[in-house]
Amino acid sequence: SEQDVERVAEQTDLMQIGSRNMQNFALLKRVGQTGRPVLLKRSMSATVEEWLLAGEYLLLHGASGVVLCERGIRSFDEHTRNLLDLGAVALLSQVHHLPVIVDPSHGTGRRDLILPLGRAALAAGAAGVMIETHDDPGRALSDGPQALTGDELERVIRALQGRKAA
Amino acid sequence: SEQDVERVAEQTDLMQIGSRNMQNFALLKRVGQTGRPVLLKRSMSATVEEWLLAGEYLLLHGASGVVLCERGIRSFDEHTRNLLDLGAVALLSQVHHLPVIVDPSHGTGRRDLILPLGRAALAAGAAGVMIETHDDPGRALSDGPQALTGDELERVIRALQGRKAA
Amino acid sequence: SEQDVERVAEQTDLMQIGSRNMQNFALLKRVGQTGRPVLLKRSMSATVEEWLLAGEYLLLHGASGVVLCERGIRSFDEHTRNLLDLGAVALLSQVHHLPVIVDPSHGTGRRDLILPLGRAALAAGAAGVMIETHDDPGRALSDGPQALTGDELERVIRALQGRKAA
Amino acid sequence: SEQDVERVAEQTDLMQIGSRNMQNFALLKRVGQTGRPVLLKRSMSATVEEWLLAGEYLLLHGASGVVLCERGIRSFDEHTRNLLDLGAVALLSQVHHLPVIVDPSHGTGRRDLILPLGRAALAAGAAGVMIETHDDPGRALSDGPQALTGDELERVIRALQGRKAA
Repeated sequence: SEQDVERVAEQTDLMQIGSRNMQNFALLKRVGQTGRPVLLKRSMSATVEEWLLAGEYLLLHGASGVVLCERGIRSFDEHTRNLLDLGAVALLSQVHHLPVIVDPSHGTGRRDLILPLGRAALAAGAAGVMIETHDDPGRALSDGPQALTGDELERVIRALQGRKAA
Repeated sequence: SEQDVERVAEQTDLMQIGSRNMQNFALLKRVGQTGRPVLLKRSMSATVEEWLLAGEYLLLHGASGVVLCERGIRSFDEHTRNLLDLGAVALLSQVHHLPVIVDPSHGTGRRDLILPLGRAALAAGAAGVMIETHDDPGRALSDGPQALTGDELERVIRALQGRKAA
Repeated sequence: SEQDVERVAEQTDLMQIGSRNMQNFALLKRVGQTGRPVLLKRSMSATVEEWLLAGEYLLLHGASGVVLCERGIRSFDEHTRNLLDLGAVALLSQVHHLPVIVDPSHGTGRRDLILPLGRAALAAGAAGVMIETHDDPGRALSDGPQALTGDELERVIRALQGRKAA
Repeated sequence: SEQDVERVAEQTDLMQIGSRNMQNFALLKRVGQTGRPVLLKRSMSATVEEWLLAGEYLLLHGASGVVLCERGIRSFDEHTRNLLDLGAVALLSQVHHLPVIVDPSHGTGRRDLILPLGRAALAAGAAGVMIETHDDPGRALSDGPQALTGDELERVIRALQGRKAA
């Protein structure tokens, strides 16, 4: 509801629109009206054009900025949970010069692929990565197999910063 | 025909199976029997499992080695020619420890995305990249928009080797 | 907002959830709570399982019934707007015995394919079809190329009822 | 080899190109040169345009006719083995007036969906259907779960001919 959106906006620096709501235009309008910057996750079947249009819609209704987040699209192969589209990341960041980050946790669904895909995302031009973490992944209510513990996260961050091989 | 395969084998260090023939088992058998190492391009709709099985088939029939080559799979968005599956590259190279290279030229179909995707491929764990080049891309009979001139290729190679920003 | 949902529920016999909101669980909950039966359009990238789970969620929150509506999923070929999944329709209607209807207008995006795909949908087991119409398709703000005029609609309905060939 | 193709051509009324060879142009050329009519199965990731071009290539090299066969394309949902594209069938048969048949056995991979999808295929405009059969499906080396016994096949054919409900 409207009150929910306003309450969240008061407490946060950046509002996040999840991929299942990328084309929930009623929500986009309300979130835009708060004037907060927004992290817009790509829907798992959105074209790049549809994703950009959803971002424009947020700006049109008052969002002070939009950061795009690639989190993998749906494809035919089950070897990874989703298919990370780094071509779209390179296109948006290197050709359109828009801010894009990448979520390799949802993008692969596998803990052991977060570091190589995180590195690949930065190499493709991503402005940053967003990584899922949990104190005790085995007990996570959702997304456990892709969550890193605090220690693992620290090692991955160091490796991504090039300070030390993981 | 069999003679064609043998004639090519005599002249080459590495035989290439194109993506449209990844599941042409008569050809795989004949190429395997030459004993040459083979570069096996992924079919645009092959799962990772089907790709690995095609590689096993080559080895079974005598190929002295198989190098896998990811060149993009078919997806719903036309913003790039194909969708480069770097999750598969990371899985094969980092988890299975198999040799994989990446073809960012076919993977994106766009000259301006070859460098960022080439970098991303190496970061994901690719053992190398394969880049299309042409003396005069505007006159190429096929794939012109993704071909680099010799000078451009040299700049991209230097940038990938980290010697100099492109 | 909640008031919007209630106002619509008062005026309608059947509430419709559009495909872009199939996984908007806040909306599903509110719509379920009105107790009205619901037409649930499949998201263009939903698996059959995700679609059924969204239906269960509506029932759990009070919907007095759910009718599923297949309207085409996203695929790699642009020859039709979407790809109508009549295998899913047959599975749901013939194996699971659930009520499914089909929207061949969105499913194909082409006026001339509505009759053959409408017939195919009924043959696959659909309980009905849902067809887009407009007084003056050339002036429609959206979806004009797939809309039928009133006269065309009448002819298609007659043909589907087997009374007269179209 | 060339001799294989000629030997098959001597014994058959209609040559079949399987979906994994739809773009094996060396084979298409050789088969076309026999002058026989050809059944051309769609590759699981071919666009309608690519499929038609493969058919043109057969005709160009001498095939006396081409019958297209839709057998399902690759998609993201595992509920059926492939996704039968009846929109393409309607487009080719009703708009382009080309002969198309449908293979609901490979198209669904499930014995219980062959009749409803066979009916849907004919309703969409298919000139015929192609159904897999096996004396003892439980012992089939491949494709057992989609094969019908002789008795089942007879019942399905009768139902498709409208003589008797299955």
